[in-house]
Amino acid sequence: MALVVQKYGGSSLESADRIKRVAERIVATKKAGNHVVVVCSAMGDTTDELLDLAQQVNPVPPEREMDMLLTAGERISNALVAMAISAQGAEAWSFTGSQAGVVTTAVHGNARILDVTPSRVTEALEQGYIALVAGFQGVSQDTKDITTLGRGGSDTTAVAVAAALGADVCEIYSDVDGVYTADPRIVHDARKLDTIPYEEMLELAASGSKILHLRSVEYARRYGVPIRVRSSYSDKPGTTVTGSIEEIPVEQALITGVAHDRSEAKITITGVPDHAGAAGRIFRTVADAEIDIDMVLQNISNTTGRTDITFTLSKANGPKAVSELEKIKSELDFSAVLYDDHVGKVSLVGAGMRSHPGVTATFCEALAKAGVNIEIINTSEIRISVLIRDEQLDDAVRAIHEAFELGGDEEAVVYAGSGR
Amino acid sequence: MALVVQKYGGSSLESADRIKRVAERIVATKKAGNHVVVVCSAMGDTTDELLDLAQQVNPVPPEREMDMLLTAGERISNALVAMAISAQGAEAWSFTGSQAGVVTTAVHGNARILDVTPSRVTEALEQGYIALVAGFQGVSQDTKDITTLGRGGSDTTAVAVAAALGADVCEIYSDVDGVYTADPRIVHDARKLDTIPYEEMLELAASGSKILHLRSVEYARRYGVPIRVRSSYSDKPGTTVTGSIEEIPVEQALITGVAHDRSEAKITITGVPDHAGAAGRIFRTVADAEIDIDMVLQNISNTTGRTDITFTLSKANGPKAVSELEKIKSELDFSAVLYDDHVGKVSLVGAGMRSHPGVTATFCEALAKAGVNIEIINTSEIRISVLIRDEQLDDAVRAIHEAFELGGDEEAVVYAGSGR
Repeated sequence: MALVVQKYGGSSLESADRIKRVAERIVATKKAGNHVVVVCSAMGDTTDELLDLAQQVNPVPPEREMDMLLTAGERISNALVAMAISAQGAEAWSFTGSQAGVVTTAVHGNARILDVTPSRVTEALEQGYIALVAGFQGVSQDTKDITTLGRGGSDTTAVAVAAALGADVCEIYSDVDGVYTADPRIVHDARKLDTIPYEEMLELAASGSKILHLRSVEYARRYGVPIRVRSSYSDKPGTTVTGSIEEIPVEQALITGVAHDRSEAKITITGVPDHAGAAGRIFRTVADAEIDIDMVLQNISNTTGRTDITFTLSKANGPKAVSELEKIKSELDFSAVLYDDHVGKVSLVGAGMRSHPGVTATFCEALAKAGVNIEIINTSEIRISVLIRDEQLDDAVRAIHEAFELGGDEEAVVYAGSGR
Repeated sequence: MALVVQKYGGSSLESADRIKRVAERIVATKKAGNHVVVVCSAMGDTTDELLDLAQQVNPVPPEREMDMLLTAGERISNALVAMAISAQGAEAWSFTGSQAGVVTTAVHGNARILDVTPSRVTEALEQGYIALVAGFQGVSQDTKDITTLGRGGSDTTAVAVAAALGADVCEIYSDVDGVYTADPRIVHDARKLDTIPYEEMLELAASGSKILHLRSVEYARRYGVPIRVRSSYSDKPGTTVTGSIEEIPVEQALITGVAHDRSEAKITITGVPDHAGAAGRIFRTVADAEIDIDMVLQNISNTTGRTDITFTLSKANGPKAVSELEKIKSELDFSAVLYDDHVGKVSLVGAGMRSHPGVTATFCEALAKAGVNIEIINTSEIRISVLIRDEQLDDAVRAIHEAFELGGDEEAVVYAGSGR
């Protein structure tokens, strides 16, 4: 008997009616002869409403209490889905992250899963129940407090539970019916992929694709859990994220897809004296503020013995990074900190890049032809990313998609909604 | 250092603004030098909204899941109050019923507290924190599932936690500023009591007074926890429910107050053959349907050898009781089951009744003078209750209150709201 884990996101659960439809799908999966475990996010706007209430009573709410508050959302949705399943003739028990054995670090708001011991879930399955597990949460091993898992937490819960149970597949449901060669809202002939290897999905996720969270794909890869990305609005098979590159058919395309990212900003520190330690000091300052850096560019020192250092980071961290760097301005004696949040990143991902040096050339030519100027380039074995002006992102995505002939014959079906 | 437990009901917590005011009171209590433990009900309409959502996905929701769902409400309010406290300069940790060590039976929707081992609460207090405990919930000793405690559950949580901690007092806050000699919305010169013994409060609660739940008063009495009934809208000292009758001042009034109850209905089974076992069969039938009976009246058999049996019960159980009794109609060969839901109960409570036989006479005379007909009388050592027409309830309450000179000089302050 196969064991299927299904995860439903907030928009799939945003009303009683949607919940009933999700329950129908779950019951159908069970009746097809599977053990079924379901992970639900909070309903629609619940998390935002709770955050708003919190803000009203405390502009800087303590994190332990924020986790206690937000986890109410998943509690509600999972219990309601269990009830809806029961109304449709199957039996279901819902479990909190803690009850399902999701044990985490003590970092509120961004806890990491240490272990999953889902004995109560297994017991429920053995008794013929469908088991629901609240996503996005766990219990701290040290403090026994409830924790939330940060961004992509529900996807991570689903994959972690699937891994612990040795599930045959982990299906992630949203309002998107699979992973496309590019965002279908930008590229009208974007093609849905039937399969994609973990490594390429990781690169797409790291490059701005919002289909799956990086963290859950990494977890799936480490434990060998196949992920299927599907829409909760149709019966289409979706996209399967699986195995290593070696497991993908020989006929696999050279290039998988194009991702874009509007969430970054660029910081340039100008006139940095060109001595050993200056760059280190700059990056340490940013790291100490717990800010991640993405792309880096350092100009070669010119005749003045000074250089510019440029890097990108999440827009959300921009103001803080600027203020931390201003603090070391006189110490390092650089000229200025410039901040630019009108940048965008576009990336090409594909395993074939390894063995085809012409890819970078084709990529750059396509951008030039589209009149897009490249400000920074950053590559990995299977990815090329460039930083450009954000208003040129759509043109750049289309140009690259075209240049690598990624389009399909059918018009991509575009769903209203955020694409999550 | 005194230990104070405070319980806030849903209407005291119905908005972010009310929550902040409640937090002010809590912080003030802490700053006055007390250890403070707070039990919060769910915010305003939350429980009703959750019940409504549940109904939409399943008209008969499974009880285990209903408990999982409803407990989200208390989780939310306690976390928000903790955050509000933190914004006002004190520190607070919220705990679920389970985390606070509230262990219960496995009866979902109506669990009974078996034990309270509040070690995490004690630890929080020792570290200088204010501890919040989610009301209305616990964890089943047998199944480890989350349970809710049924009616009056949050009051019960508060008293049980107070008992387990050896608290100096348990303050129950609502929008009413104390226990009155009668409902101030009916009797304008009703007087607020400064103190009232447990036994009399028990009788008032059993007779329809909604100020405190019977269950929590019984728990307080058993463990000797003083309860103070106060308003969250003022600083008035409220009413203290305490000790035994012997502890109350010698000057204690003969009569404590008048309660009324609109929630009952009357069932009369007519023409019951007057043989041994008929009455037993009737009451066993009702008991097997898990329905409680309040007042009973059996007419003396007339010349026909048949009798009428009358009893009262909660209106909510009326239809079910009638249908169960109809099933045994031919077996017992009685004439009919009559159902009357236009009845009301009015009760006089006072320890002094023990030693003053004239009380019953005065009571009945007052009702007769007010043109109120008595249908059933039921008494205990310290209480007289009568069943009358419900449209005469207000007149009856006023007549009795007047006859026993319970009124005060000040006009009672009447709060808008349900009186909880």
